[in-house]
Amino acid sequence: MKIHGKHYRTIWTNDDGRSVEIIDQTLLPHTFESVTLKTTEDAAHAIRSMQVRGAPLIGATAAYGVCLAMRQDPSDAALDHAYDTLLETRPTAINLKWALDDMRNYLRNRPHDQREAAAYERAAKICDDDVETCRRIGENAAAIIKDIARKKPDGKPVNILTHCNAGWLATVDWGTALAPIYMAYDQGIPIHVWVDETRPRNQGASLTAYELGAHGVPHAIIADNVGGHLMQHGQVDMCIVGTDRTTAHGDVCNKIGTYLKALAAHDNDVPFYVALPHTTIDWTVGDGVKEIPIEERGPEEVTQMTGRTSDGNVVTVDIAAPGSPAANFAFDVTPARLVTALVTERGVTEASKEGLAKLYPEFAS
Amino acid sequence: MKIHGKHYRTIWTNDDGRSVEIIDQTLLPHTFESVTLKTTEDAAHAIRSMQVRGAPLIGATAAYGVCLAMRQDPSDAALDHAYDTLLETRPTAINLKWALDDMRNYLRNRPHDQREAAAYERAAKICDDDVETCRRIGENAAAIIKDIARKKPDGKPVNILTHCNAGWLATVDWGTALAPIYMAYDQGIPIHVWVDETRPRNQGASLTAYELGAHGVPHAIIADNVGGHLMQHGQVDMCIVGTDRTTAHGDVCNKIGTYLKALAAHDNDVPFYVALPHTTIDWTVGDGVKEIPIEERGPEEVTQMTGRTSDGNVVTVDIAAPGSPAANFAFDVTPARLVTALVTERGVTEASKEGLAKLYPEFAS
Repeated sequence: MKIHGKHYRTIWTNDDGRSVEIIDQTLLPHTFESVTLKTTEDAAHAIRSMQVRGAPLIGATAAYGVCLAMRQDPSDAALDHAYDTLLETRPTAINLKWALDDMRNYLRNRPHDQREAAAYERAAKICDDDVETCRRIGENAAAIIKDIARKKPDGKPVNILTHCNAGWLATVDWGTALAPIYMAYDQGIPIHVWVDETRPRNQGASLTAYELGAHGVPHAIIADNVGGHLMQHGQVDMCIVGTDRTTAHGDVCNKIGTYLKALAAHDNDVPFYVALPHTTIDWTVGDGVKEIPIEERGPEEVTQMTGRTSDGNVVTVDIAAPGSPAANFAFDVTPARLVTALVTERGVTEASKEGLAKLYPEFAS
Repeated sequence: MKIHGKHYRTIWTNDDGRSVEIIDQTLLPHTFESVTLKTTEDAAHAIRSMQVRGAPLIGATAAYGVCLAMRQDPSDAALDHAYDTLLETRPTAINLKWALDDMRNYLRNRPHDQREAAAYERAAKICDDDVETCRRIGENAAAIIKDIARKKPDGKPVNILTHCNAGWLATVDWGTALAPIYMAYDQGIPIHVWVDETRPRNQGASLTAYELGAHGVPHAIIADNVGGHLMQHGQVDMCIVGTDRTTAHGDVCNKIGTYLKALAAHDNDVPFYVALPHTTIDWTVGDGVKEIPIEERGPEEVTQMTGRTSDGNVVTVDIAAPGSPAANFAFDVTPARLVTALVTERGVTEASKEGLAKLYPEFAS
């Protein structure tokens, strides 16, 4: 994707080939700034503080976090320590564990003096694979958008509702849920996106709106409360979201509030799609509501808000009644019964054990 | 209700018996300040700008708006002009029309020289009636809370989710949905309230949390996205909300996002109650989704946020991606099928034509 005319990925190595650069997403949409990661702890901090977020990008950053460890100390102990440090940064996104397992398995049986180089190669491959995976997800889901467009009266845009940010900022490039929107838009399909603000961290208003605006895709930010009303009034043709962890039964754990939109879609016969790389599937989990740990974050994410003042300063203000406590759950689980279909790099399938097993026979048991 | 130990209503006449005082709710929770209304236009501005809000309080303010007109000019033309000016301030809350009809009918056939005094008497009666109505709603709904409390394990609080503000700030005193919470709490029932932030105007985080905090009721502010997750995990025993317009069939038009919570309650077998005075019932409307006009407000309510900086200043900041458009629908309609029961000053009834007709045979036809 391009920012100010320059092509970016969300994570890359600097000219030294070793230090890692990320876009500090906590500063968006107010400031576009990159940050250099030099140590595993830098990478852990970037994930924990959500300088990087989005399941695929969390995985990629964790992979580079292992590289940074190997650069300093290629021992088994250092490898295990990096694994543990990075794994505990966020409890819900499964790509984190997937990427860490992949890196450790790849490095474990190599001689110490080859580990640093091998780690960087492997992390680069994880990133390249993610880009290709997202491109395929985009193609597969763009076909759905084109299908809806064909049935609309001439020239009427396809209205798509999305929640949180599953765009290129959530991945290495392209995005998952937004990839088909970019592709369909680039192919001339008229599109309008309803962007859920996505409280409390506002990834919709901050990141999705920023991405769509930069690409020129027509959109409007709406409060998270609005989607149901729009669906009742025929203003939404489809919903598409990403996921942080998908169970083997097709339950979808995604940003808090996704479940409410899926309920509204179901109540109004609006198709509800989830776009995902296979790396977000947790084959060990069946019932997502019962089994997936839901991250609780600090209350200040709810009671404070950061924005630009009229003179251009970025400030954080308290918005809630003084002294009021707040609770901050980061994800919820949408049961498979509310999901019209899952769209992966291999195709479109029913959100069910059978559907997933058909696409991924090598993982399903 | 008491603020800093002093008893307040949300609207009252000053010592001159003629000018009207309101609490400027746009400044809460940061500043507690009252504003004097001297003209009908002041009253219209207070309603339009949401210095006062909440269906019952909008009605009371409109009634005093008519008084202020009669004070300056008791003619029929002035009466009609005040009626029209005030009616167009907000399109959705039906109490506005109810109060204006009541005032005009009461004044129309009186001699001009008696209209001013009669108007103030009538407006005071509307306010007193509202207080008594809310007290009765509170008693009727508190019985439901006590019933749930009896079935909870010893000492476990009743977890109640509410959306927006239907507390004393939305009425003249007591509130509708919050009245039973205050009453049950005062009677020693352990209660914990999940306060939906209620974007974009944050009436939950600003007003409901402020009220509950002032009264000492345990509560936590949550993003509007969270309620479904809590209900999936047994963390909500009941929902109770207010309404801006209720149809003769029991459909409930309330703050945007109410519908999403009702869907989640239905999906998780959590009872969903709506507290209302009979003045919010629009006997002329059947299908709320199709027939009730939904107010659209300015996009800046979505893209900006007001709060306190660390040095105590109250500032407004831009929170969204620069240049991104926003859409701002203020209400949605929850179909009667999702409402467990309506709680009015006359009792608890099924949300249906039959249920309402049984409680209000004199209005139902």
